[in-house]
Amino acid sequence: MSFPDADTCRTLDNRDPLRPWRDAFRLPDGVIYLNGNSLGPLPKAVPPRLEKTVLTDWSIGLTKSWNAAGWFGLPARVGGRIAPLIGAHPHEVIMADTVSANLFKLAAAACRLRPERHIILAAEDDFPTDLYMMQGLTDFMAGDKRLVTVPRTGLAKAVDGDTALVLVSHVHYVSADIADMAAVTRAAQQKGALILWDLSHSAGAVPVDLTAAGADFAVGCGYKYLNGGPGAPAFVYAAERHHETVRQPLTGWFGHARPFAFNARYEPAAGMTKLLTGTTGILGAAALDAALDVFDRVDMALAREKSLALSSLFIDALDSDLSEYGFTLASPREGARRGGHVTIRHPHGYQIVQALIDHGVIGDFRAPDYMRFGFAPLYLGYSDVHQAVERIRTVMDSGLWRAPHYGVRKTVT
Amino acid sequence: MSFPDADTCRTLDNRDPLRPWRDAFRLPDGVIYLNGNSLGPLPKAVPPRLEKTVLTDWSIGLTKSWNAAGWFGLPARVGGRIAPLIGAHPHEVIMADTVSANLFKLAAAACRLRPERHIILAAEDDFPTDLYMMQGLTDFMAGDKRLVTVPRTGLAKAVDGDTALVLVSHVHYVSADIADMAAVTRAAQQKGALILWDLSHSAGAVPVDLTAAGADFAVGCGYKYLNGGPGAPAFVYAAERHHETVRQPLTGWFGHARPFAFNARYEPAAGMTKLLTGTTGILGAAALDAALDVFDRVDMALAREKSLALSSLFIDALDSDLSEYGFTLASPREGARRGGHVTIRHPHGYQIVQALIDHGVIGDFRAPDYMRFGFAPLYLGYSDVHQAVERIRTVMDSGLWRAPHYGVRKTVT
Repeated sequence: MSFPDADTCRTLDNRDPLRPWRDAFRLPDGVIYLNGNSLGPLPKAVPPRLEKTVLTDWSIGLTKSWNAAGWFGLPARVGGRIAPLIGAHPHEVIMADTVSANLFKLAAAACRLRPERHIILAAEDDFPTDLYMMQGLTDFMAGDKRLVTVPRTGLAKAVDGDTALVLVSHVHYVSADIADMAAVTRAAQQKGALILWDLSHSAGAVPVDLTAAGADFAVGCGYKYLNGGPGAPAFVYAAERHHETVRQPLTGWFGHARPFAFNARYEPAAGMTKLLTGTTGILGAAALDAALDVFDRVDMALAREKSLALSSLFIDALDSDLSEYGFTLASPREGARRGGHVTIRHPHGYQIVQALIDHGVIGDFRAPDYMRFGFAPLYLGYSDVHQAVERIRTVMDSGLWRAPHYGVRKTVT
Repeated sequence: MSFPDADTCRTLDNRDPLRPWRDAFRLPDGVIYLNGNSLGPLPKAVPPRLEKTVLTDWSIGLTKSWNAAGWFGLPARVGGRIAPLIGAHPHEVIMADTVSANLFKLAAAACRLRPERHIILAAEDDFPTDLYMMQGLTDFMAGDKRLVTVPRTGLAKAVDGDTALVLVSHVHYVSADIADMAAVTRAAQQKGALILWDLSHSAGAVPVDLTAAGADFAVGCGYKYLNGGPGAPAFVYAAERHHETVRQPLTGWFGHARPFAFNARYEPAAGMTKLLTGTTGILGAAALDAALDVFDRVDMALAREKSLALSSLFIDALDSDLSEYGFTLASPREGARRGGHVTIRHPHGYQIVQALIDHGVIGDFRAPDYMRFGFAPLYLGYSDVHQAVERIRTVMDSGLWRAPHYGVRKTVT
């Protein structure tokens, strides 16, 4: 298939019903931002909300704002707004801490719910912090539980009667492969195990239906497709059937039934509130809350359709206009199996990503040779994909990526 | 002693070398804010910093800002700036998560350092989240460790050969009593136990010298006297001698030696970085960083002296002008034993605090009958104390606090 020309892409943009949403974001001039899977761009709703939070609620309202400005209610409010994006009920989701901390809480809770079992099963190539947190947890539990990792595709088969918990990312952070949530959940539960989904690369990007899948637990990220800002608060999901029995070890005062009674004895709050730990960081929470405004009105089925159209266009270019440069596709070709980003490989991927960034195409690099490009449908158009492909061609044809300064890997990329 | 008149207080303010710092804060008009021990007011340095963080670093720099705008370095940078306020070396302090989460990390680390001991010893009336986190931790460790609480004054005597860790607040959240850091640390260590100080009500308010005391660990709060904003990030301290051996269970990717190598195996970073867990919340971190600007230039000995002068003035008023209303002092009368706030008791404390808030004197209430008033020296003056006392008298004389709507306690105060 041949890659469409600039005019065709412009026409597609003009017809795009989601086109007006681009105006809800502040994007830098001249840049094609294909990294919203790492850090979403700034929603225009955020600066006025932060201004209110800082100059009115903090500066004038001061401590009164915990009640008067709804600060205490933010974790439940934000969680409830994320719920429809992941097929959960509002009272099953709460905003809290980081993805990492939440993984610890839920995995520890799952271990308590399956005390006689000994294994946490995870995908061997899952996002590192998922594995690290399980290593920290099992290590800390000193022999009672252990972490077993298998290939992502082998999880369903590897569950057995000794598996307490299966932990897996719904959309894989490198390949963008989408796991079959219903099937893996069923496989885990048929053997009596619980399941914990990491939705970091899913929420706001692909359809998720935790309820239909009958999932037990989930965590997810506020700063990727939800555009909540750098290091935005994360979220936690627990199916309602677990609310009564779930117990997590990070039992801080914000998870207490009556935090301002100042009782010496911890008493877990009802529902998801018991998943909270310390004082809510209000600036990050307010920014995420404002960022969610767009999702109240976007048709997510249309958004998913457009994201796939954009990433398919990019894959088409790899097969046609970019075929000579030696890129290989590391993401599923089948749209239904592919999340919001496309990953390609190239032996000089690191240098090429750096050169592209300098030429206004922001993607990212993951060792050893993966180049990731995100196709968020709310602020990207068909012409953006066209221009990105043109710039990739320019960088490759000109050999710009061979410039010596692109050869040195920085500590952190 | 008789309470000085308004003119005397104005003269004291005019002579006060710290008076100019009041302009570094944005305070609401007509309000005397005696609650900085709960939530510090807005430093004027914060809004421009947030504007840069949001409109430049996030909006334009996007993912590049993790390096280019120093986002990755913020935990160590902010920790290093807090260090001189608590008598620590810059590399011994790092900004991270919440006080609650940090208590868990350090207490778990201490338990690993003393595996053959079984007791975490804490003060029975300490801030609830300190006790709750220890309950969550010991409960989770299923019998291996247990929490023992004793009166705050009995901690030193209660340490024995089975004590792994002593946890205690340096300044008590109700009484403002200052513990003898050197003596309690010595008592703990003489019996082979480790010590963990909670500096939430100390940092930025009273002199702290962790190094001189030989303390092992500490945590502290960013949103009280450090004025970092509602739910600001907290901080962690570990003495350098523990950096090599300390291991904490919340082993997230931001605490990894090489987070962007994406290795499957957790490998703790060197130094304090291993105390980090998930992705740093940049908005909260940037606000706290800006809030610390004032401390770079304030003479903290002068600040402490002034804080004591203000709180002594308030105590003098209790003894003279306010003596007829039945308030009793719940804080140490001796300045050297008293932190940054003063707590008084009254059978109708709840109603009186509510009525005072409506009359522009912001303090807070802690059950059953405690009224807390903070005397932060950077933005309060002698005339503020004078006016606060006048307003307390007005509220008491007029019986305004008896209005029926002050009688109903809100869920959260």
